[in-house]
Amino acid sequence: MTTQEILAAAVAAKSAMTGLTSKDKKEAILSMADSLMASSEEILYANRLDVKDSLGSMSEVLLDRLTLTAERISAMADSMRSVAQLADPVGQVLSETVLPNGLVVEKISVSLGVIGIIYESRPNVTSDAAVLAFKSGNVCVLRSGKEAYRTSYAIVTALRRGLTEFGLPETVINIIEDTTRSSANEMMAAKGYLDLLIPRGGKGLIRACVENAKVPCIETGTGICHIYIDGAADMEMALAIIDNAKTSRPSVCNACEVCLVDRKIAASFLPRLKAKLTEKREKAVELRLDDEAAKIIEGIPAGEEDFDTEFLDYILSISIVDGVEAAVRHISMHSTGHSEAIVTENDMAAEYFCKNVDSAAVYVNASTRFTDGGEFGLGCEVGISTQKLHARGPMGLSELTTYKYIVHGNGQIR
Amino acid sequence: MTTQEILAAAVAAKSAMTGLTSKDKKEAILSMADSLMASSEEILYANRLDVKDSLGSMSEVLLDRLTLTAERISAMADSMRSVAQLADPVGQVLSETVLPNGLVVEKISVSLGVIGIIYESRPNVTSDAAVLAFKSGNVCVLRSGKEAYRTSYAIVTALRRGLTEFGLPETVINIIEDTTRSSANEMMAAKGYLDLLIPRGGKGLIRACVENAKVPCIETGTGICHIYIDGAADMEMALAIIDNAKTSRPSVCNACEVCLVDRKIAASFLPRLKAKLTEKREKAVELRLDDEAAKIIEGIPAGEEDFDTEFLDYILSISIVDGVEAAVRHISMHSTGHSEAIVTENDMAAEYFCKNVDSAAVYVNASTRFTDGGEFGLGCEVGISTQKLHARGPMGLSELTTYKYIVHGNGQIR
Repeated sequence: MTTQEILAAAVAAKSAMTGLTSKDKKEAILSMADSLMASSEEILYANRLDVKDSLGSMSEVLLDRLTLTAERISAMADSMRSVAQLADPVGQVLSETVLPNGLVVEKISVSLGVIGIIYESRPNVTSDAAVLAFKSGNVCVLRSGKEAYRTSYAIVTALRRGLTEFGLPETVINIIEDTTRSSANEMMAAKGYLDLLIPRGGKGLIRACVENAKVPCIETGTGICHIYIDGAADMEMALAIIDNAKTSRPSVCNACEVCLVDRKIAASFLPRLKAKLTEKREKAVELRLDDEAAKIIEGIPAGEEDFDTEFLDYILSISIVDGVEAAVRHISMHSTGHSEAIVTENDMAAEYFCKNVDSAAVYVNASTRFTDGGEFGLGCEVGISTQKLHARGPMGLSELTTYKYIVHGNGQIR
Repeated sequence: MTTQEILAAAVAAKSAMTGLTSKDKKEAILSMADSLMASSEEILYANRLDVKDSLGSMSEVLLDRLTLTAERISAMADSMRSVAQLADPVGQVLSETVLPNGLVVEKISVSLGVIGIIYESRPNVTSDAAVLAFKSGNVCVLRSGKEAYRTSYAIVTALRRGLTEFGLPETVINIIEDTTRSSANEMMAAKGYLDLLIPRGGKGLIRACVENAKVPCIETGTGICHIYIDGAADMEMALAIIDNAKTSRPSVCNACEVCLVDRKIAASFLPRLKAKLTEKREKAVELRLDDEAAKIIEGIPAGEEDFDTEFLDYILSISIVDGVEAAVRHISMHSTGHSEAIVTENDMAAEYFCKNVDSAAVYVNASTRFTDGGEFGLGCEVGISTQKLHARGPMGLSELTTYKYIVHGNGQIR
């Protein structure tokens, strides 16, 4: 089917979602999870073809992300089953007001309609995104990266089998068949079809969506996260937090890219930081230092762009600043608005930092790695918004809904 | 000052807003209201110049909207004072969770930052928008229509006097000096400067913003509102509601443009509707009828476009439909998602309508004219959103805020 035909089928499927009760949705998700497990062989076969085609052209880390095993499929089904158990985000009465004229105004959460999601090659995104959209009452249109297309198609086929067994039209979950750039452009232009487009993936894709999309779009993911080590920090804690935020998983958006150090403690802290991040470890972190830090420890001189780059790698830029106000100024100029942390025992510095840093998540004495739907207790996430409208930070089920006002009267006129 | 300089000054003024308490904001608004009153003479003088220049080139209705009187200025000040009394939308704890690892995650409402508002020639929008932005902790950049520019500039000057008397920088409230199209384009492209752009005005402006803006933008206003008269309607009530929704103020977005009539009652209802809307009144409503309605009453044959036009005038399109399901289908194809109503005594029909009509406000047995921030009890409004992301329907103070997560720990790592 052409992209246009798939979009039209998705819009037509909306009415099938409107009639579903919370119980229906829960049971349909369990049916899809069963069907996913029953289709393991087909999915693994498709995945082997995808992996074979990418051998040699893809890094080891990415190949590992692309590769499925029986165990990973089972984890995907478990994740679906846990979403099935979450509270229904749709139909909640957000407020109810009786106006002086007797009108009863209810504000009720409702699904958005049709959600498009453009992503890359992690196969579990296919089942996660489909089930989150479904649980929140939305039809979804998925566009997988072409490296994972056969795998994603097999997963969607399995989910659709679960849908039809439950008596629902398969067009409630759709996958775009054209994996060239032109289908992404068609989705960005699909006004009247898509109520929301979520780009998950590289910076180029996200920028293209935000700048060109004619449909509502949410900017996700890019994280140039800062950790500021205040003069009043507990140094042991500071070292543990930076180590964790930088090296526990450098490839993700909530990893730390820049460390700002209060001048007051730079001379004592920096040598310890260098030792922690570079000595006696499997993979040393490359330190990129501003002029002042370079006077205290050895490292690579930082270029201007090093404070505006999401490395997603074992690289950390370090700058010395004059206290918390200067740290906030640096962050306001260089942050992508994702997650920033201060390490300090000084409550006033912590409060100033929290109040003045304009990011989705601001931490006191904790790692930036916690910015995540699962960690925040949302149950799951479909992405992390770095914009301020609609949703900010981890987007769970309720961020995939909107609301409407339902007003009951008995003839009121104005 | 150039538009670029004004935008830069607005961004620089953000920090002055961050430190304000609820009490500060309330007192500053009262100071601005006093200053507005004290500047009445200057404002009226500027307004006379604007009105003089528009004589002959502007319709009477629009000239009346442009014209200020001492009384209208006093009403503007009163409206500011009532906003001063509303609850502070910023700093509210929206949720607080303690995670199993001891992290305390607070979700707190915060201001957006800098809000741009492009509007036309109603002078009271200047003070309303400025005070709503201020109360929600935002810096604003206003761009008034050129017909009202001298008036708007005089109003902003008065408000700024109130700000500086209170010790705040005047750049917390800004007005763009260039009233050509190029300044609107600069605002749409002001990424990194504007956190939100709200276009209030004609369809062309709104469409240009939604399609071209590189900054987050909220679609407001266009209302092709439908009223469906069900077979089980109370006819007297139906007549009163349509009369009110069509003729009480035809120029506004929540006025009714299309009446859908259940075939079951068309033969008896339509003649009464025609009598009600066309006979014995100062201004008769022009009826544009589909083929079937035209067999029952006389009127102008409706063209296809008559069911997709926001008339904002004494014109009503009428179509006969087969029951509530057909009415919902018609609405889903032609509505702008603003406000729709059903008149019926049948609860099942009402419930079906409410569930399946995908608009910001859905009414049972009441006029669509109630879709309004003041009427809904929000205290005020900065526009009515017809999109689904971030805000839907009347936008009051809380719709001018976002949130951030503030996370307190004692060394947690992941």
